[in-house]
Amino acid sequence: MKRLENGKIDGIKLAYIGGGSRQWARNIMSDLILEDKIGGEVRLYDIDKESAEKNAIIGNMYNSVAGAKTKWNYKAVETLKEALAGVDFVIISITPGTIEKEMYSDVHTPESYGIYQAVGDTVGPGGYMRALRTIPMYVEFANAIKEYSPNAWVINYTNPMTLCVRTLYKVFPEIKAFGCCHEVFGTQELLMKALNDELGLEVTDRTEIKVNVTGINHFTWLDEAYYKDIDLLPIYRKFADKHYEKGIIEEKDKGDPYKNAHRVKFDLFRRYGLVAAAGDRHLIEFVPQWYLREKSDQEKWTYWLTKVYTRVAKLRKKNKEGEDIISGKEELVISPSGEEGVQQIKSILGLRTMITNVNLPNNGQISWLPKGAVVETNATFKSGSVKPVQTSEVPLNLQNLIIQHSLNQESIIEAFFKKDRQGIINIFANEPMIRRLSLDESKELFEKMAEKTKTYLPDWLL
Amino acid sequence: MKRLENGKIDGIKLAYIGGGSRQWARNIMSDLILEDKIGGEVRLYDIDKESAEKNAIIGNMYNSVAGAKTKWNYKAVETLKEALAGVDFVIISITPGTIEKEMYSDVHTPESYGIYQAVGDTVGPGGYMRALRTIPMYVEFANAIKEYSPNAWVINYTNPMTLCVRTLYKVFPEIKAFGCCHEVFGTQELLMKALNDELGLEVTDRTEIKVNVTGINHFTWLDEAYYKDIDLLPIYRKFADKHYEKGIIEEKDKGDPYKNAHRVKFDLFRRYGLVAAAGDRHLIEFVPQWYLREKSDQEKWTYWLTKVYTRVAKLRKKNKEGEDIISGKEELVISPSGEEGVQQIKSILGLRTMITNVNLPNNGQISWLPKGAVVETNATFKSGSVKPVQTSEVPLNLQNLIIQHSLNQESIIEAFFKKDRQGIINIFANEPMIRRLSLDESKELFEKMAEKTKTYLPDWLL
Amino acid sequence: MKRLENGKIDGIKLAYIGGGSRQWARNIMSDLILEDKIGGEVRLYDIDKESAEKNAIIGNMYNSVAGAKTKWNYKAVETLKEALAGVDFVIISITPGTIEKEMYSDVHTPESYGIYQAVGDTVGPGGYMRALRTIPMYVEFANAIKEYSPNAWVINYTNPMTLCVRTLYKVFPEIKAFGCCHEVFGTQELLMKALNDELGLEVTDRTEIKVNVTGINHFTWLDEAYYKDIDLLPIYRKFADKHYEKGIIEEKDKGDPYKNAHRVKFDLFRRYGLVAAAGDRHLIEFVPQWYLREKSDQEKWTYWLTKVYTRVAKLRKKNKEGEDIISGKEELVISPSGEEGVQQIKSILGLRTMITNVNLPNNGQISWLPKGAVVETNATFKSGSVKPVQTSEVPLNLQNLIIQHSLNQESIIEAFFKKDRQGIINIFANEPMIRRLSLDESKELFEKMAEKTKTYLPDWLL
Amino acid sequence: MKRLENGKIDGIKLAYIGGGSRQWARNIMSDLILEDKIGGEVRLYDIDKESAEKNAIIGNMYNSVAGAKTKWNYKAVETLKEALAGVDFVIISITPGTIEKEMYSDVHTPESYGIYQAVGDTVGPGGYMRALRTIPMYVEFANAIKEYSPNAWVINYTNPMTLCVRTLYKVFPEIKAFGCCHEVFGTQELLMKALNDELGLEVTDRTEIKVNVTGINHFTWLDEAYYKDIDLLPIYRKFADKHYEKGIIEEKDKGDPYKNAHRVKFDLFRRYGLVAAAGDRHLIEFVPQWYLREKSDQEKWTYWLTKVYTRVAKLRKKNKEGEDIISGKEELVISPSGEEGVQQIKSILGLRTMITNVNLPNNGQISWLPKGAVVETNATFKSGSVKPVQTSEVPLNLQNLIIQHSLNQESIIEAFFKKDRQGIINIFANEPMIRRLSLDESKELFEKMAEKTKTYLPDWLL
Repeated sequence: MKRLENGKIDGIKLAYIGGGSRQWARNIMSDLILEDKIGGEVRLYDIDKESAEKNAIIGNMYNSVAGAKTKWNYKAVETLKEALAGVDFVIISITPGTIEKEMYSDVHTPESYGIYQAVGDTVGPGGYMRALRTIPMYVEFANAIKEYSPNAWVINYTNPMTLCVRTLYKVFPEIKAFGCCHEVFGTQELLMKALNDELGLEVTDRTEIKVNVTGINHFTWLDEAYYKDIDLLPIYRKFADKHYEKGIIEEKDKGDPYKNAHRVKFDLFRRYGLVAAAGDRHLIEFVPQWYLREKSDQEKWTYWLTKVYTRVAKLRKKNKEGEDIISGKEELVISPSGEEGVQQIKSILGLRTMITNVNLPNNGQISWLPKGAVVETNATFKSGSVKPVQTSEVPLNLQNLIIQHSLNQESIIEAFFKKDRQGIINIFANEPMIRRLSLDESKELFEKMAEKTKTYLPDWLL
Repeated sequence: MKRLENGKIDGIKLAYIGGGSRQWARNIMSDLILEDKIGGEVRLYDIDKESAEKNAIIGNMYNSVAGAKTKWNYKAVETLKEALAGVDFVIISITPGTIEKEMYSDVHTPESYGIYQAVGDTVGPGGYMRALRTIPMYVEFANAIKEYSPNAWVINYTNPMTLCVRTLYKVFPEIKAFGCCHEVFGTQELLMKALNDELGLEVTDRTEIKVNVTGINHFTWLDEAYYKDIDLLPIYRKFADKHYEKGIIEEKDKGDPYKNAHRVKFDLFRRYGLVAAAGDRHLIEFVPQWYLREKSDQEKWTYWLTKVYTRVAKLRKKNKEGEDIISGKEELVISPSGEEGVQQIKSILGLRTMITNVNLPNNGQISWLPKGAVVETNATFKSGSVKPVQTSEVPLNLQNLIIQHSLNQESIIEAFFKKDRQGIINIFANEPMIRRLSLDESKELFEKMAEKTKTYLPDWLL
Repeated sequence: MKRLENGKIDGIKLAYIGGGSRQWARNIMSDLILEDKIGGEVRLYDIDKESAEKNAIIGNMYNSVAGAKTKWNYKAVETLKEALAGVDFVIISITPGTIEKEMYSDVHTPESYGIYQAVGDTVGPGGYMRALRTIPMYVEFANAIKEYSPNAWVINYTNPMTLCVRTLYKVFPEIKAFGCCHEVFGTQELLMKALNDELGLEVTDRTEIKVNVTGINHFTWLDEAYYKDIDLLPIYRKFADKHYEKGIIEEKDKGDPYKNAHRVKFDLFRRYGLVAAAGDRHLIEFVPQWYLREKSDQEKWTYWLTKVYTRVAKLRKKNKEGEDIISGKEELVISPSGEEGVQQIKSILGLRTMITNVNLPNNGQISWLPKGAVVETNATFKSGSVKPVQTSEVPLNLQNLIIQHSLNQESIIEAFFKKDRQGIINIFANEPMIRRLSLDESKELFEKMAEKTKTYLPDWLL
Repeated sequence: MKRLENGKIDGIKLAYIGGGSRQWARNIMSDLILEDKIGGEVRLYDIDKESAEKNAIIGNMYNSVAGAKTKWNYKAVETLKEALAGVDFVIISITPGTIEKEMYSDVHTPESYGIYQAVGDTVGPGGYMRALRTIPMYVEFANAIKEYSPNAWVINYTNPMTLCVRTLYKVFPEIKAFGCCHEVFGTQELLMKALNDELGLEVTDRTEIKVNVTGINHFTWLDEAYYKDIDLLPIYRKFADKHYEKGIIEEKDKGDPYKNAHRVKFDLFRRYGLVAAAGDRHLIEFVPQWYLREKSDQEKWTYWLTKVYTRVAKLRKKNKEGEDIISGKEELVISPSGEEGVQQIKSILGLRTMITNVNLPNNGQISWLPKGAVVETNATFKSGSVKPVQTSEVPLNLQNLIIQHSLNQESIIEAFFKKDRQGIINIFANEPMIRRLSLDESKELFEKMAEKTKTYLPDWLL
């Protein structure tokens, strides 16, 4: 039981589910190799076994790369059972279905109904269709964890975040799972920029910007933000006013769907008084069609819709990189990801203490959202323990924007586990992005999209 | 203190606020004169003093009309204080602003933005603008009741029902107020028709149809309906299927905005499994634009938009009737109203016991709506006591339709009492009927409508 | 499905579990034979088959007794399955264990530790030991109902009421069960006496006294009481003050353990301002040893401890009566029980409407008691529906007296279903009647009592 | 607004209310002088002006003591207004009434009724009588803070902790107050000892023992305890079993009322499975008389009742020390207090981050205790923010021990602010330590104690 030796904990067992794309996997490999206080083994499981094997090769290459501070033994495994048996931690980061086909449909099928999506993987027609094919996969993961590693801590990175984590808890309520997302980090950076610009400081570490987080993934809000003893909300107000018209974006980033000028964030702040804490392209999908009624609204609000073909290209590039690293064409370098997963692992092992935002079932930390729904708030990470932090109430007119999504997410779970197809059609009909359609149209859209993702759907849904 | 004598309670003091229009006032006069177990005095207060005086004349005429079973002494008073001092019951039934001007604007101003309203007095742009001018009036009533008759029972008939009752409790939390609406009664009649048609019965009393009511005013739902030991839900299902295409409406009623073919109700039942219990024209206003996106949707779903000029005509006719009754041109007859106010008064006096649906602050009777929000459920009426009945949960996808409105209503109260103009503009922007507009448009609409009702609005709102 | 014919519902199927003692069974037989609108069959099941058979004989004799208004066909059955298959209603009224042995121990074993119990079947050492042997029986009933008659309405009369009903819901959460107790009725009679004495009225029907009920079985409280428009609380205050010293009891009733002088009730009213609504001998068991620290306190507060031998004698007399009726030595007469079970059945069948107090899981009707715990409040009884009525809050110092028991009851369920013997010993140690013992003593008492009732306990408890 | 310069925040304004005794004041002076990143002024206010002035002298002496790392300017002020106007932080640490007279009565008056108290300042007759005289003082503080420094952070050290903090929030709900207590720290030290003993480690910093805290002040419980990745609960179980009979105490500490052998803690752990986290002498006062029925129980369970004369002696010694330091007879040395107040101040200023246990109103962090009641749980301390951490549920039989006190505390507040003397007598009658008395005795005890502390009580209480 005691593994601690000279301040280092060795022999940690970690399962990594998915990540075949090598993008996310290399992130965590870099982060792991930089931590001298922990070491052990990583089991890689992917439905694309070849990908897992390639990842194992790269993972083991990290042990001898310049700057490596510890050692991790990577191996690809063939079954969930092999991956999970007796592990301390499980990381799940999968692509549900393919990007080329299913995700393509998620994003682009609704366009023929005049519905444009900035991302399409969280809510809206794309988000819910993605959820419907992902839930069965997470049912399988939850059952396997329950059987093979019931005491493991489980970290989810897959979208739709809320529904992935919710499914894990629905199937195995005692699971110790949480979900991590970096969207809030970007907003901390924006606040840091406001601070530096307005007060002439040169703060460079976004974790110095202390925030209270409340809401749901990709639609999170900050009701407090401080740097040391400096309240950042009045500073952000000035900053938002100053940049309201033009936004903040570098010339080179214009047109990049992963960038935006924060104008949606500024507008929401001026209207609601709290800081919306996700990329504009996510926020857009949660509110009425204020910022995306016509396709041309993207220019008006200075952001760009993500097209799926750019994702495909990005993925291919990453895979190519992987090949080149294995063959020696490209040098393997450690590049810290900016994600917090490895720090959270260290915290749970008692090697540090953190307060950061994660996704957990609502046990009362947000009094005005349904109990059990997965929400995103601060949590304390310390030895053996992850606990959500209580949030303050937000104005009722803002609650009303958020709760609609939370109830839709809970409804999807309720309907899915009851095999209630009509219930799911009802959710579509009342979904903020879809509900401007007629009843017939929303049903038709559901059916078209279901057809295109049918490989992954249960029979009763077709 | 003891007023009971030979089974009759005399000396009851009742204040009637509003009702100058004579329509609602004559309803209750008829109901009162038919109850032999109660009698006393009625004080009539209206900002249109002349109307109150005419009502007093008519009220006293009822005492000698054929079929009169008791005696009530009516008098018009000049102040709220005179009306309220020491009364047992207060009935409030006012027209906030005028129909010709303010209500006209409520209903028709939004049409230039493509927003059609079937009623326009509950939610939507019309309902909320009406609320904004009504709340200050109810603040005044609540304060007066607190001062002059804190122990009185208060019955509200004014729309927007929810926000009128909510304002009373916000200002004077110990008030004993509830709100009455007959929309559920119409649905009981429809269920009675289904029962009679399907089983060949001849039930004629809608109170024999026992229902559980849950939701908010004009968007109430039934999760149980019985006649004796017969479960009416399977019967209603057959009935709804049979009449789904054509609806149920008599030829002569076609085109009458106060009638409808129940097709919206049938559609909601088939989709949600619970019985929507209000007139179609109300239901339409609470859901996304499923049934009223284009003006032509009224034909498609077989209902007719209420035009305000029809209301004006109706009101004039009623007033003319009043004149004629006073002058003797028209005979005064007792016509029972079908409302339950007088029966509720009798119940509170201990002369009978009732279970019926009313509007009360949520004290837990609907677990999934905000505490304190005014909701409509069954309540028990007995000696000295009105208590809400616990409801069962409804499916989450239905909760989501309802809670948006309840939170908007709570938001209006929060914003109004904080004098938060931006908050009110935010509510408009996210209101189900308005939110298809752009942010600029919804703000512009708010301001146009505010201008047209400005006589009754507080300064900070203009 | 439709059984209603000329206003009468025939063909009702009713299962009666227990009642072998004939006391409770004859109550309901009398009540059933007096209702002309209902008829059908009653299946009698008792572990003492002979008793059930004798009851069947008597039950069928009722059909030809003078005053019989309908017909019920009684038959004794051998299994729970035969009793339950397809019935509309189930009545459970059993004696868990024997009075001579197990109940004797419940009441008298604790006396050697200085703990006297006035009743010993609800809380305290006797109540909880009785619960521990009753829960397994109710697990069996709940499972059988789930299997053979899941849609039946289940009425429980057995004590400990709260834990019997709680077990049914724990095992089969969808069960439609409620528990009935007549203790509140006695308090309505006392209020009626106060009304008649103070105002010179001659009210004779206790159901005319309208009350709001809140609390848990045998420790229920009234926060409102009215007759017609007369508030009874000020009247009861005068009455309680007047009779505080001597109480109210007829000379002939002195010494009768089933009677009392209401002095405990008066004292609680003067201290808490609400009417305690159960017999004094029950109330005594729920509060600290205020009224029963020494055996002599019974004289001081004018009540008498129930001795188990009086119960045995009473039972034998009832059984003898039964024999004599069958043999014709004694005439069978209809004697209405004063219980409300049959009226509740009629209400559920839609033949009347009632508001009365029953025991149901807390779904929010008492906001300050745990969700799911069984509580006693008013409920509405109408066609196909039993729903609890929302209660108002009671003062915190009174909540504190009640919640301790509710949490102990919930703890017993939690510990029992987890097979947590230490948990049960902990509950004993903190039970209001037991907690003046040392830890060793309370454990010893538990073990002595468990030994004496071991025939009915699961192994892990011994 | 920006005070941060080179990583140091200067110009902090701090008000210290009370502390005239010099014991607590010197604690914080030592802690402040050791922090090089903060500096500013401290205003000392005490009803004993002379004491405050002496403290100011000592405080300023610290600036030139060996090891001083910063500078604080101390001054004594005459009014609350002077103390509070515009400060950043307020520390309250008063002695309500005198130790010689009022506290003497708190502890020793109940002894004539057979009620012995181990401390007498939290619950029980002593705790509640102390509360009744302290609440009016805290009403004054809360009103003054509301007027003069509404944005200040307020740290309370006075007992009864729960009721002091509760009164602040009752009077000024927007106050930013929390209460600090070191009892949990002692339990962390005990867990550290268990860890070191069982695993042969040499951990010396109790903050390395990470715990989850839940409950109310002086009756807090730990449901998780870790050192790094080592779960301490199984280790503590062995440790508790091993030392159960003899406890753990050094020979020299025997008889010292501020020490104990942890046997009560061990017993509670074996029975409830969670770690009780306060000194035994506090725990004893919260449970039934399990550990203190007779005076002799202190020997049996190896702890010693605090006698008030030892407190008086201790106080005199401290005061003498103060005199000697001022006169130069005794050298002033910096002695870190082990309290966390100064670290919490630093955290709120953004100079570090902490997770520690404090007392805050229940906003949902303990789902099973009343909303608004003051509870003790972990909280996050970071820039401008103190937020409670969500706790897990504890077993129902343990909840039942705790909730009784929480409801009594809420009841005291309810009754006090309603001026409900009978309510307070009711609370006494049902208080766990008092309720074994008869009703007459508990009332008599209340009145005797009220008489002895009457200088500080409002008239309506006498």
